[in-house]
This record gives sequence, structure tokens and C-alpha cells, in this order.
Amino acid sequence: MTNQNFYEETWLSRIDKTMDHWLPKSSVHPTHLHEAMRYAALGGGKRIRPILCYATGTALDINLDRLDSIASSIEFIHSYSLVHDDLPAMDDDDLRRGRLTCHKAFDEATAILAGDALQALSFYMLTHDKKIQVEPETRLRMIEILANACGSRGMAGGQAIDLAAVGKSLNIADLEDMHIHKTGALIRASVILAALCDQSLDSKAFKNLDHYAKCIGLAFQIRDDILDEEGDPNTMGKANGADRALNKPTYPSIVGMTEAKQRAHDLHIEALDSLSGFDQKADVLRKISTYIIDRVA
Amino acid sequence: MTNQNFYEETWLSRIDKTMDHWLPKSSVHPTHLHEAMRYAALGGGKRIRPILCYATGTALDINLDRLDSIASSIEFIHSYSLVHDDLPAMDDDDLRRGRLTCHKAFDEATAILAGDALQALSFYMLTHDKKIQVEPETRLRMIEILANACGSRGMAGGQAIDLAAVGKSLNIADLEDMHIHKTGALIRASVILAALCDQSLDSKAFKNLDHYAKCIGLAFQIRDDILDEEGDPNTMGKANGADRALNKPTYPSIVGMTEAKQRAHDLHIEALDSLSGFDQKADVLRKISTYIIDRVA
Repeated sequence: MTNQNFYEETWLSRIDKTMDHWLPKSSVHPTHLHEAMRYAALGGGKRIRPILCYATGTALDINLDRLDSIASSIEFIHSYSLVHDDLPAMDDDDLRRGRLTCHKAFDEATAILAGDALQALSFYMLTHDKKIQVEPETRLRMIEILANACGSRGMAGGQAIDLAAVGKSLNIADLEDMHIHKTGALIRASVILAALCDQSLDSKAFKNLDHYAKCIGLAFQIRDDILDEEGDPNTMGKANGADRALNKPTYPSIVGMTEAKQRAHDLHIEALDSLSGFDQKADVLRKISTYIIDRVA
Repeated sequence: MTNQNFYEETWLSRIDKTMDHWLPKSSVHPTHLHEAMRYAALGGGKRIRPILCYATGTALDINLDRLDSIASSIEFIHSYSLVHDDLPAMDDDDLRRGRLTCHKAFDEATAILAGDALQALSFYMLTHDKKIQVEPETRLRMIEILANACGSRGMAGGQAIDLAAVGKSLNIADLEDMHIHKTGALIRASVILAALCDQSLDSKAFKNLDHYAKCIGLAFQIRDDILDEEGDPNTMGKANGADRALNKPTYPSIVGMTEAKQRAHDLHIEALDSLSGFDQKADVLRKISTYIIDRVA
């Protein structure tokens, strides 16, 4: 999400700085594992989840210092999921973001453990980072939502559904169910956890933000599927139809390209509608939705 | 730890019942993943960590209903660690407790995800189970300790140290460092989390219980190493010298059998000393220490 100019330049550096702060140094024992955790988490990426945290904070006038560890915690969960998803037993990928995947740069055992330890670190930091400045009850609610979002009825469950779907003929409901679990839950958590920092927020506004997150999460996946077919292979860094070649069900393969694009557009409109009660401070959230359906990589 | 008669018969059934309660049913989507989680967690085992929770609760006169979800949460972490440790990229074991390991009964990808989801479930349940009856601050402290105990400076770090130690010549300090991380941290958490339910406990008694747990955790590992050499292969279910054959450093291989036995005995005495300020309600903790250095399997 670099150079899109819809969020503050400082956001990427503040998330990297926060992740660096919470990750044990490479010199700390056991050094090999800590190197692998740092490699996995600090290797770049779109950082869409942290950006959603900060954008929600901007919409609600929350001091962004309060959101650093929340954003970082969610990105650690995302990082760990990529490390495990890339393993030979799962997607068996050698490259991620133009560099070797964690198990290729280190080894499989270290990659499994680095993912496991990143998950533990996510929960650890949320328990006590003072800067979040919320009541203990709210902090517990954040941990509860995050644990649920990454567990068997969230992200891990979604990856299981995804693996089981390879070569199967899914209908659109099954496909959306997979995405809602695999990526949707953590994207929603990014918005909800930030929103929980505003204790004056009414339940209607909270639900609207959650619905916004649900819509853009699905739109993001549809755009992924569209780009898999139509994206510029040079920009994408992979050949067209890569997912199709792997027999992975995609939106265009199930409903056709025209309807897939229409569905992404409808979700974008629905996301914007959810924000109708918010003022111009929510423009970053609106721009994220636009970016998601227009992006070329 | 069955049939040793040093803890209440009901403890094993109450932990199984609690784990069953918190695990999603096999009929819940995604069913295959939930089956794997249940297979991994409900497949028996010594349940030494839950028993330590209940024994600590008994020593401190805590209603055991308050400890069910804590004990279960710790055992889920232990279960997930076994699933990941058994993977081909780690210890590559086909059997565990006389049945197929999770990745053999299901598949590697499902085993990785089942472990990941069990970790998330552990934290999830601690955030809100009403029966624990502690202040939110204490609940957060429990999650913090558990996350630390299973992360890179606890259990996951210990497994990384263990894997790196194969074929290496360790000294006794390195070996103890590995055990303190790999199993010690979670065993200490079992005692500490239960003790946190007694909000009247003074810091000296708390430290003594922690020290007790540290001693028995190490003694447990030394006894493991001794049994690897001297245990009855029929009772143990594996041949003598299995760890030695794998080039794993063990206490007897580093300090000799006599000194290994002496060290286990010394730790047992130190564990009992730590409990000197506790009355006869702590006898179960004392008997656990005796069991640990006398056990034959």
C-alpha cells in the first residue's frame, strides 16, 4: 500500500518501529528463533491491517500512540499466518514479497516455531502495554476478539477451509464463507480493536464500522481473484491464472468476471454507506475502500 | 499419572470434561479442523499441568471450579506443542500415547492449523470464563504469564534450543536452560496461574510456590532422561537409550547416572523445602514431587 497517498507517510514507519520494539532482539537467546521471527514480521508487506487500525483511530479522533501496539499485535498474527501458510505442507511457497519464505531462509522447524511464538507475542503485548489506555475489561475484550479472529472459527479455520477447497467445486456462499474466515475476521478485528479505544462510541457507530470492515475484507479478496486473472504479471510478480492453475476456487471462476467486478463495486458502495454517519475524518477509511477495489497489485 | 492415588480421582474427569466443553464440537464448521483439535487435546496424557493447577488450588483452599478453565487452557497449550513437536520437520513421530500422532491421523497441514487454533483457544477462554472469579487485572496477568511461558522465551524457545542441540555437546547449564524453557515455563505457569486466584496470598508464599514448580519441572526432565536409560521398555513403550540414539543430550550423558539421580533427589528436597510454610493441604503438591522422581513411566 505504499505510494497510494491516502494515508499518512508516517504510518508505515511507526508500525515497523513498534514491531521492532516488541520483537525480541536477534541477540537475545534463542537467537536463531528470534532472527526468524524478525525476518517474518519485518519483511515488508502492505500493512493493510495496521493501516486500518490507524485509519479507524483517525476517524474517531483517537491519539494514534494508543493504537501502536494494537496494530502491531494484529500484524504479528498476520505475519505468523503467512509463515505457516507458506510451509511445504500448506501452500509450499519459496518466495514471499520477493524474498525467500521463512522456512526457506531458515528451516521448516524454525518457521513453525517462529509462527507459534509470534502468536504468543501478540497476546502478550496486548495484556499490558500502558499506551493503549483502556480499562482492563476493554483490554480483555480486545484479546477475546483477536483470539476468536485468529482461531478455528476465524483465520486458522479459514485456512483449513481453503486447503480443503482445492480442486473442489464451490458455490459463491462457500467461497465467501472461506474468505470471511481466512482474512475477513482479522481485518474486522483491525477496525474493531481500534474502535474499542473510543469508549464513548455508541453501539450503532461500532456496528457500522464493523460492517465497513466486513465489506472491504471481502472486496479485497474479490480484487485479489480479479488481479489473478487480469493483473499485469510484472506488477503482480506472478503469472496470470496462478490460482486457477492451482485449482483454487475464485470469484471469476464461479460467477464470471463481470459479476465478480460488480460484486466488488457493490461491496465498496456498501462500505461507504456504512460510513455515512461519520464526518470527513473517516475519509482515510473511505479511501482505503477505493484503493482496495482499484488496486493493481 | 493415573492410579498413583495421590490426587483426587475426579480431577482427570473434570479436566477432560472442561476441555470437551471449550473445544468446538466436531459437527461445527470447519469440522475437519475441529476433529483434529479434539483428537489432539482429548487423547489422554498424564495431565500433569492441570493436576498441578488443582493441587495448588487445594493447597490454597481455592474452590476447584474456579480452576477448570485455567487448567484446561494450559493443557491446550501443552497439547498444541505436542502436535507441532511431532511434525516431520521437528521430531517426526508417528505415535503418541499409543495412537497415531495428529499429522498421521489427519494430515500435516491440518495438524499445524489444529495446533495454531488450540493456542488461540487457550487465550480466548481465559479472557472471559466467569467461573475464574478474579479481577480483570488478575485475568490479564494470567494471560500475560501464559503468553510469556509459551512464547519465544518460554516453550517455543525451548523447542528451538532442543532442536539446535541435537548432535551438539552441551554442558549442564545449557541442558538446564533448554528444559527451563521447553517444559519448565509452562509447569511454572500451571502453579502460578492457580495461585493468582488466591488474592490474599503474600508475595513470599507466591515465590515459594513458583520455586517449588521450578524444581519439580527440572526434576521431571531429569527423571525422563534417567528412564530413557534405565526404564522398563515395556512400561515406557520405547527402547532404552532412544534419546541417546537420537544424539539428544541428556543428564546421564553429561553428568553420569549417579549425579543425575542425585540432582533429581536434590531438586525434590528443594521442592519440599519451598513448601515448608504450607500446611497439610499442600500434601498433594508434596506427593507430586515424590511421584516425579519415583515414576517408572
